[in-house]
Amino acid sequence: MKAEQLRIDEARLMARLSELAAIGATADGSCCRLALTDEDRAGRDLVVGRMRELGLAVRVDPIGNIFGRRAGSDESAAPVMTGSHIDTVRTGGRYDGCLGVLGGLEVVQVLNDAGVATRRPLVVGVFTDEEGARFHPDMAGSLAYVGGLPLAELYETRGIDGKVFRDELERIGYLGDAPVPLYRPHAFVELHIEQGPVLDLEGTVIGAVENLQGISWQEVAITGQSNHAGTTPMRLRHDAGYCAAAIGHFLRQLAREMGGNQVATMGKVDLHPNLINVIAARARVTVDLRNTDEALLQQAEAKFAAFLRQLADSEGVKIEAKSLARFEPVLFDKAVADLIARTAKKLGHSCRPMTSGAGHDAQMLARICPTAMIFVPSVKGISHNPAEHTEPAHLAAGADVLLHTLLELAGQG
Amino acid sequence: MKAEQLRIDEARLMARLSELAAIGATADGSCCRLALTDEDRAGRDLVVGRMRELGLAVRVDPIGNIFGRRAGSDESAAPVMTGSHIDTVRTGGRYDGCLGVLGGLEVVQVLNDAGVATRRPLVVGVFTDEEGARFHPDMAGSLAYVGGLPLAELYETRGIDGKVFRDELERIGYLGDAPVPLYRPHAFVELHIEQGPVLDLEGTVIGAVENLQGISWQEVAITGQSNHAGTTPMRLRHDAGYCAAAIGHFLRQLAREMGGNQVATMGKVDLHPNLINVIAARARVTVDLRNTDEALLQQAEAKFAAFLRQLADSEGVKIEAKSLARFEPVLFDKAVADLIARTAKKLGHSCRPMTSGAGHDAQMLARICPTAMIFVPSVKGISHNPAEHTEPAHLAAGADVLLHTLLELAGQG
Repeated sequence: MKAEQLRIDEARLMARLSELAAIGATADGSCCRLALTDEDRAGRDLVVGRMRELGLAVRVDPIGNIFGRRAGSDESAAPVMTGSHIDTVRTGGRYDGCLGVLGGLEVVQVLNDAGVATRRPLVVGVFTDEEGARFHPDMAGSLAYVGGLPLAELYETRGIDGKVFRDELERIGYLGDAPVPLYRPHAFVELHIEQGPVLDLEGTVIGAVENLQGISWQEVAITGQSNHAGTTPMRLRHDAGYCAAAIGHFLRQLAREMGGNQVATMGKVDLHPNLINVIAARARVTVDLRNTDEALLQQAEAKFAAFLRQLADSEGVKIEAKSLARFEPVLFDKAVADLIARTAKKLGHSCRPMTSGAGHDAQMLARICPTAMIFVPSVKGISHNPAEHTEPAHLAAGADVLLHTLLELAGQG
Repeated sequence: MKAEQLRIDEARLMARLSELAAIGATADGSCCRLALTDEDRAGRDLVVGRMRELGLAVRVDPIGNIFGRRAGSDESAAPVMTGSHIDTVRTGGRYDGCLGVLGGLEVVQVLNDAGVATRRPLVVGVFTDEEGARFHPDMAGSLAYVGGLPLAELYETRGIDGKVFRDELERIGYLGDAPVPLYRPHAFVELHIEQGPVLDLEGTVIGAVENLQGISWQEVAITGQSNHAGTTPMRLRHDAGYCAAAIGHFLRQLAREMGGNQVATMGKVDLHPNLINVIAARARVTVDLRNTDEALLQQAEAKFAAFLRQLADSEGVKIEAKSLARFEPVLFDKAVADLIARTAKKLGHSCRPMTSGAGHDAQMLARICPTAMIFVPSVKGISHNPAEHTEPAHLAAGADVLLHTLLELAGQG
């Protein structure tokens, strides 16, 4: 059989995903494998066992990141890496992260079974604590891997349960001794569910992810004056509720005017006293701005800040905005993203270039090697929820694209 | 002393107000005399005692309304009536309602002391349950007095504590037997604090109240779709939070475009799930529209309904609006309001025509006789709150205007 005719085994992939999903399964159908818990250990043990069955050389680094390495014909060449994470949020779905890890192992199995060798070694990585649901920050394992987070600092981090990162890592038996970073890959490709609605709504099977949004989170506190909704003329109002509405309205205009990838959301609004016949004295709203371009994201922030100043002036209210989080956008490698797109088309799958709205380990790996991601559809865009779902055929399609992308990057023979 | 030189006694008026405020006084400085409670009874007993001291003929009707009548020289002439209420909300101020009752009794005292007789009898009325804070609806006593609420229906009303109106009225000893309505007045004038910020902000002492706003209260429920704030492009959103903001923004525009007395308020906003990075699935907001002109208020309602239909269409969300309350505007008697304005000027007080944004017993009396109101400033517009305050000089000025307005309406001799 020619290498280009290889396909992954959908039934086997689904079985492996179910096996992992059973660890930490909850009554409502979600998975709870918070990082460095007993459930995380059980998941890791399962994955490491699979790696060994597949003949991979397994190493663990002091961050708890796990790497399974399949030898290449040119052992001096930098390896091609794939992978993701297997920790979950408290109400995690079955595929978030796990697809990237078990999809990578499925690729290895197919190559093993077909006796196909690659020039470069292939590595499947499992990164520690991607979700950040127990230990902050999220993507901690891949961030520390690329040197963005000192090990000493990570080790002292306390979880939501007060436990210390290093203690828990040691307790579950994954405090390894491999150098950091163990590999500087030739390229990194991560297969992941979209966790957004775009592919599902369009009926597109594969997303070739070119970039990842920068995020600016702000909390805006407005202090106006409480007054009677009947007896206070419009011109005498200092209405914090109106200001909250004006912010929500402005954000929509901002996103429309800027176009492109700019998104803007006011997800949280709290008025005080929040009564039908009282002009609100105070409002607190959150603002979520994202763009794939740092300059444009800064432009959005500047326009928003100017709007707030103008609003405070015109309404006679006090407005204070505070940054809650700020991440720069990540640009993936165009050549790798294009290769993913070409590969998808060659395999007969519909494909579109796209942007990731969520954070992923790939964004950290992008700091040290050419990187891109493969997305498959999330039904209705639902994620971090027991209702998270992707059609098995789409999971398999994603793994097939991963297989042939890795083959192309690693070279045969 | 000529009648036009008569002035009320500010110190005495303040002492009477303090005496009544002591009944039901709470630790935070507010008054709690919910209708038909023991505190209301104690307040009534105090007022009735004052009426008897002043030589008034006291009668109580089956609604619990109390009337103190000072004889006129022409006993066949319809009396001129003033008055208000002495029940309070749970956190009532000292002057809301009480000023109108005790101000009326102060007028009687001044006339008695000066030996001034009027042609028409003068009546000071105390209307039951104006606040509606224990028994719905508000202004129940004056509404029933003018025939707008059947006695049988009022009697069966249950309070927030489950007690029945008639039982409580009988229990406190104010189930009277006077005919309803006991008087069809020649005119009715009510002195009241503004409960809004207009007079205080302008530095005007007297408001000659010409009309009272109509009220339309609605609750609007929006059902959109919850999604990730990062991964969901703007064009694919069904954002209930944005719709709430758009409603708040529209209301401001509506009030600006309609101008005049139109006011519009979104005082209450509740989003679900109300999280920074999640597009809101649901929103529930309240809308308070008021205008002094019924046709304009209907126009505002129609424009708002059209906006909601358009918003539901453009955003792909479900919007349901439900009316919570609806009252038509009340137009007071122009001749009486003009007389109040002329009287204020004659006494050297600054005065402006104005609109009441809150409901008052006078709006019910307006159904059976020429009626208008006298407003005095509320500091910062605060009411229904222990911080409710009016300067003593302004309380006295209002009572002086009441005195001379009543004298003019009743005629001397």
